[in-house]
Amino acid sequence: MFRLETRRRIGALRCLLLSCLVLAGSCDRSSGGDSAPAEETPPATFGALGTRVLVVERSSGSLAVYDYARRELAPERIEGLADLSHATMTFSPDLRWGFLATRGGKLHRIDLHALKVDGEVATSSNSIDNAVSHDGRTIAVAEYVPGGVSIVDVATLEVRKRHEATFQRDGQTLTSRVTGMVDVPGNRFACVLIEGQEIWILDASKPEAPITLRVPSGEGMPYDAMITPDGRYYVVGKLNSAQVAVLDLARPEAGVREVLLEDAEMFRKRNTPAKLPHMASWAVANEHVFVPLVGEERLAVLDRRTFGYVGSVPLRGHPVYAVRSPSEREIWVSFSGEEDDSFIDVIDAETLATTQTIEVGRRVYHFDFTPRGSHVLATANADDRLVLIDASTYEVVDVETLRSPSGIFGPWRAFRLGL
Amino acid sequence: MFRLETRRRIGALRCLLLSCLVLAGSCDRSSGGDSAPAEETPPATFGALGTRVLVVERSSGSLAVYDYARRELAPERIEGLADLSHATMTFSPDLRWGFLATRGGKLHRIDLHALKVDGEVATSSNSIDNAVSHDGRTIAVAEYVPGGVSIVDVATLEVRKRHEATFQRDGQTLTSRVTGMVDVPGNRFACVLIEGQEIWILDASKPEAPITLRVPSGEGMPYDAMITPDGRYYVVGKLNSAQVAVLDLARPEAGVREVLLEDAEMFRKRNTPAKLPHMASWAVANEHVFVPLVGEERLAVLDRRTFGYVGSVPLRGHPVYAVRSPSEREIWVSFSGEEDDSFIDVIDAETLATTQTIEVGRRVYHFDFTPRGSHVLATANADDRLVLIDASTYEVVDVETLRSPSGIFGPWRAFRLGL
Repeated sequence: MFRLETRRRIGALRCLLLSCLVLAGSCDRSSGGDSAPAEETPPATFGALGTRVLVVERSSGSLAVYDYARRELAPERIEGLADLSHATMTFSPDLRWGFLATRGGKLHRIDLHALKVDGEVATSSNSIDNAVSHDGRTIAVAEYVPGGVSIVDVATLEVRKRHEATFQRDGQTLTSRVTGMVDVPGNRFACVLIEGQEIWILDASKPEAPITLRVPSGEGMPYDAMITPDGRYYVVGKLNSAQVAVLDLARPEAGVREVLLEDAEMFRKRNTPAKLPHMASWAVANEHVFVPLVGEERLAVLDRRTFGYVGSVPLRGHPVYAVRSPSEREIWVSFSGEEDDSFIDVIDAETLATTQTIEVGRRVYHFDFTPRGSHVLATANADDRLVLIDASTYEVVDVETLRSPSGIFGPWRAFRLGL
Repeated sequence: MFRLETRRRIGALRCLLLSCLVLAGSCDRSSGGDSAPAEETPPATFGALGTRVLVVERSSGSLAVYDYARRELAPERIEGLADLSHATMTFSPDLRWGFLATRGGKLHRIDLHALKVDGEVATSSNSIDNAVSHDGRTIAVAEYVPGGVSIVDVATLEVRKRHEATFQRDGQTLTSRVTGMVDVPGNRFACVLIEGQEIWILDASKPEAPITLRVPSGEGMPYDAMITPDGRYYVVGKLNSAQVAVLDLARPEAGVREVLLEDAEMFRKRNTPAKLPHMASWAVANEHVFVPLVGEERLAVLDRRTFGYVGSVPLRGHPVYAVRSPSEREIWVSFSGEEDDSFIDVIDAETLATTQTIEVGRRVYHFDFTPRGSHVLATANADDRLVLIDASTYEVVDVETLRSPSGIFGPWRAFRLGL
């Protein structure tokens, strides 16, 4: 866009010049360049693409830009975005764009090089999440209102198709909210209908991304879903249930397996199921899945293949996120509740002991490892802080002030399945 | 560079314009733009950073550029590079640069955005490989002649330090070749001395990257080494030996363990050890390591944690590379020998059966998965071919003609440990 404008400008200037019939004398080239108005100056690029993260600022509808290698915040933000509550960003495989689906139903396209909003489209009046197809051509947006899936063209931002999420109950046709949108191997998408209690598989290799398979998600109302990092299992969490539905994406026709996330004996005794947080917060490391249980001071540990209950890890407080280190040697955990939510605890993935406690700032909302695991980036929402932690020494090595920061999104997500 | 020139040009044009005292009339803006001479046109950037791979063309000392999303080869190559035999490329974490160490001892820095050589430095007269530190500031180059490690500044390309690889034998001080250079968690490097039979750990957080630990690599002459993708184990292969030395990088002071890569009974009977190919060709998937054995029609299968021999996978011919799919569900294998070297076979990682045979072209030299596993890129050296394979259908979906192509390097390597 900049280049096109520059070319036009040069063209217009030459054109004017040729209209003059007076031969000009010599002149100072540099002074002319220095006095060029702002629109001719190339936009200052801040930092470098690979080490630059975008941080959602919820209260101001903006994205802050931080380069963790330089340890510097960009002087300018990406502004004018819609309601960014719970907004997660996906990336195009070619690293040109990031995409944000919003609670106001707008899908924003962010230019990752120019650090600007590069287009937007209204897909609904309330969107929850989105995924980019493996061929980089299609975005699927999960919609709450009206419930369904919008299929959007990455290049033109045209809505190619709206799949209405309808289902039958007691002879009536009803509409369902949709959530848990992820990319799936084979250039597919998966999502789940909340009221419809159905998993959909969509084929992104066709322009309208038709629904190729509908699989009942079993008992209970889904509220979120995740895909394991190897792309094998799609796991659906359900409200007020200790069971999750697991779909093997290698054999989706076989339907879901219902898996109990607790020791069966303990579950019978208490008869009150553990609650689950957002599924994005599960950590898959080595042979285990670590699941934060809402309102309990422990992580459940499951077998990665069978999803059978293996045991649990005692914690200082109620867990929110569990994130594995790229080495798979540690699980980092954040907490809810005033007494604990300033801390990230580090769990040894082998001994299951807490080995470190790191003070980050009040209300840790999100955190992520840099791709080779050298650092962790974390936001402390109530203290308006973005924090950089050295993952070898566990020391906070940089603190920046942001406006009500939440999600942190690095370009490495473009190269990972299900993110 | 382009931008600077454009600004000067605009400045000069305006300056000339202001010299004219004649007010110009209206004119067609677009025609002026269209007739702009070549030097004012921004250089066409080819493809996009995230889906662009660089392919070594050995015979011509050049890098071809291919965008696998567009399925197009760039019209221009990156030319004028030194001897690129066995050259592997590493990437800076910020995705600004790629680095090639060469058999002529030159380290080339490639600008990944401009697709141009952006600097070079002679570090020796024969380099074998290199690694970039996790903080992105330092490159360590493993040198054959004179043997040692060169510590190079990423930004200035200044050689900050040369660690000479000397060792004592029979009262004499000798120099050793160095190989197997990798990045290690904790902002460290690891490498191994071939004649010196010693593993070095270097601390990249200090400007000269001092050697902080020297660990004997045990019996036999090392020829190459690798680090497991989780950064936990450094594995040293030895000439004419069925044993590898395994160093646990969490406890490097404990020294190496010697591990037999064959069934002990089989080894006693035959009394001739299996040979090993380049260690970069090992595949770590799920709980297993798949090791191509040179001159045998099988892959050895080892336990990922103990490196104990588990079994072997029968193959059509002598394996060269074994690469796991990002899903860890498949191992793709290439072969040596005229009868087999045109093919890639696909092994199911669970059943260990060969499920697919893909004809690529004569002498498959290298191949790699795209980051989410949708495609495989492969070079057929003897047929001057780069091939794109759909990893779901196993069909060849694009073929490009290159000059004696070998290694294929995508930017996702910047985000992976040990690459």
